[in-house]
Amino acid sequence: MLAEIITIGDEILIGQIVDTNSAWMAKQLNLIGVSVKQITSVSDDEQHILEALAQAEKRADIILITGGLGPTKDDITKKTLAKYFNMGFRNDAGALEMVRQIFEKYKRPLLDVNIQQADVPDGCEVIVNRNGTAPCMWFEQNDRIFVSMPGVPYEMMYLMDDEILPRITSRFKLPSIVHKTILTANIGESFLAKEIEEIEDSLPPHIKLAYLPKLGQVRLRLSAKGNDEAKLKAEVEVYAKQIIAKVNQFVVIDEDIALEKAILNIMKEKGLTLSTAESCTGGYIAHLITQHPGCSSVYWGGAVAYAYELKESILGVKESTLSTFGAVSEQTVTEMAEGAIKHFKTDYAIAVSGIAGPDGGTEDKPVGTVWIAISSKHKTVAKVFNFSNKRIQNIERSAASALTMLLNLLKEAV
Amino acid sequence: MLAEIITIGDEILIGQIVDTNSAWMAKQLNLIGVSVKQITSVSDDEQHILEALAQAEKRADIILITGGLGPTKDDITKKTLAKYFNMGFRNDAGALEMVRQIFEKYKRPLLDVNIQQADVPDGCEVIVNRNGTAPCMWFEQNDRIFVSMPGVPYEMMYLMDDEILPRITSRFKLPSIVHKTILTANIGESFLAKEIEEIEDSLPPHIKLAYLPKLGQVRLRLSAKGNDEAKLKAEVEVYAKQIIAKVNQFVVIDEDIALEKAILNIMKEKGLTLSTAESCTGGYIAHLITQHPGCSSVYWGGAVAYAYELKESILGVKESTLSTFGAVSEQTVTEMAEGAIKHFKTDYAIAVSGIAGPDGGTEDKPVGTVWIAISSKHKTVAKVFNFSNKRIQNIERSAASALTMLLNLLKEAV
Repeated sequence: MLAEIITIGDEILIGQIVDTNSAWMAKQLNLIGVSVKQITSVSDDEQHILEALAQAEKRADIILITGGLGPTKDDITKKTLAKYFNMGFRNDAGALEMVRQIFEKYKRPLLDVNIQQADVPDGCEVIVNRNGTAPCMWFEQNDRIFVSMPGVPYEMMYLMDDEILPRITSRFKLPSIVHKTILTANIGESFLAKEIEEIEDSLPPHIKLAYLPKLGQVRLRLSAKGNDEAKLKAEVEVYAKQIIAKVNQFVVIDEDIALEKAILNIMKEKGLTLSTAESCTGGYIAHLITQHPGCSSVYWGGAVAYAYELKESILGVKESTLSTFGAVSEQTVTEMAEGAIKHFKTDYAIAVSGIAGPDGGTEDKPVGTVWIAISSKHKTVAKVFNFSNKRIQNIERSAASALTMLLNLLKEAV
Repeated sequence: MLAEIITIGDEILIGQIVDTNSAWMAKQLNLIGVSVKQITSVSDDEQHILEALAQAEKRADIILITGGLGPTKDDITKKTLAKYFNMGFRNDAGALEMVRQIFEKYKRPLLDVNIQQADVPDGCEVIVNRNGTAPCMWFEQNDRIFVSMPGVPYEMMYLMDDEILPRITSRFKLPSIVHKTILTANIGESFLAKEIEEIEDSLPPHIKLAYLPKLGQVRLRLSAKGNDEAKLKAEVEVYAKQIIAKVNQFVVIDEDIALEKAILNIMKEKGLTLSTAESCTGGYIAHLITQHPGCSSVYWGGAVAYAYELKESILGVKESTLSTFGAVSEQTVTEMAEGAIKHFKTDYAIAVSGIAGPDGGTEDKPVGTVWIAISSKHKTVAKVFNFSNKRIQNIERSAASALTMLLNLLKEAV
């Protein structure tokens, strides 16, 4: 069973927004055994949308379309779908009722353009969107399913979770796809590949191995496809065990989770607590951690100490340290980490201070210079990094390095 | 001049990573006057890649390809390109030298697979990648340009900035594309459309208006295409002024920048400072702010007060307030905001406390209940929101609402 995802809208093609919808949809589809063959972004242009639909229809069984359903004139998806399927329009009573309810809830008058949002191609089935005014439309043609959804992420997510995925699952006998991911750190992709070369060469054709490198981590993903899910799982597990045995010292966890989530799991199991003291990462590490449900049993919080004043008042960094060595120094970052342990009363603390850029660099400390310290109650480890001259990248790489350093200190303490 | 972007790799199609590269590339291309016709993600499958290349070649002048250039066996882009262009392979001396230098810098032995990274289809021009071991390859065929780049974001970004974009600009006489964006808040998309309907109807065919809604904000984007950039700018400016005059009370700023950046600009101009006191948003607001270069002149930092203990110790929230009203309450969030003003000594402070979920809700305070307070030295405004049961979404919507509340308080103080 193959799916394709088509996103409609100039905003992706001019780079104004990142297409996060497609990745989310692809993940959900894979989980129910539907492979995604292609993801395509096209503009709000009738001819181009028609071509994309025709090509997707040739390749895939299910075509999921997002975007271009707003009430305004630049949104042409509905008209184009009607043309593609050679349909007229009807005003759908169920869709109109939902629009009415939403406007009533927000106590806003119903405009003509909003009533028109309930106009749909007359041969489609309307699936009610409980979170917005654009209806979801289900079409069938030549044994293919086409679903058009709004591009607003949470409207699309609810529709997928509550309606589309359950319908696909109950309608088709889907093959099983089993993924197993091993997260590694402290080793490069090519070294890893050399270490596990023999295991990779021994994989049967229905099991594939992929290397997914990102910021000092490499994810190894085994993917197996077949009909017997239990058998696939068992097979994949055998190869995963072989890989883990071979590169054990670099393995963080054998789950497809983020590094910070793996750390949270390890710390939770040991009953350890964590705080953060961030300067140049500006809350990004805290954000990475607090994305994860249940983090509060480990993570207590911390400081975003951007100004000197806050480094002193919240973390107790000495004014003399800042004036003698500067904010980006081993001494300051050490006092930040140890200050976090002392003031926030956690078992471990992460501290980061650096020059994220693009300005603020000096000859001694160019943009990209970042000091990171990790403290436990017994020990502080500090290290300097020299990243790039790109701000966002410096923030992300600092966070990844800090998390890896914390992981290593946790492993040492075993 | 039309471009297409093709990303190669299963990781996007199984939803393991979000394709941020394409949005970035599209933005840069648009800035130099190249329109992106389509963005396509295909799997590491030879036949599928060949088809995508052939289709892109029909539609576009420049085809930019990322991904699938790693040293490992799942990466087949180079082999497939050689097949597409009917070329053999050569080991490129310049590319090999760069690989050598990178391994020397990190003091790692050079493996056979790394030497093979310098193997390239023999008819391509190699563009040296200074930030990684995969070479960038430039092909020309039938008046079309194909460029293959690594998928690692910062390697691709350097190559685009330093090599690819300058080559495209110097080679072609490109049309001008002028965009002008107006950021609005506190008004829905359809109301905005109704307000400016007459202006929209009066636009000439070469100027388009798009509505880009996101988390309580709507961006209005005017796009004009033609040959005379100065004339286009002047034209767009006329329509932008008309729109701004019509919906002035909802206009945040007439630039394509994020809401938090607009706020930073407003506060910087007035010499105002800001701090944050975050519970359920867990550093996300701080992160949004500190993404922006130069934020330190306004933003001093703040607390991520996840645990009760840190709400008390850093922000001075009273224990009795927490025990009487709970952490998610008007009283607590008010004390958090006022505590931030007092302890961090800033002019304004944002405080957020809520139940992000998926657990932790009660009958009175279900998941998605979020209290937000904004304090100045003279005033505190607090408001409760009821968002969804999705954690990430609650974090993002809380941040957007908090920023809008801050904006409104700043406007009030004018």
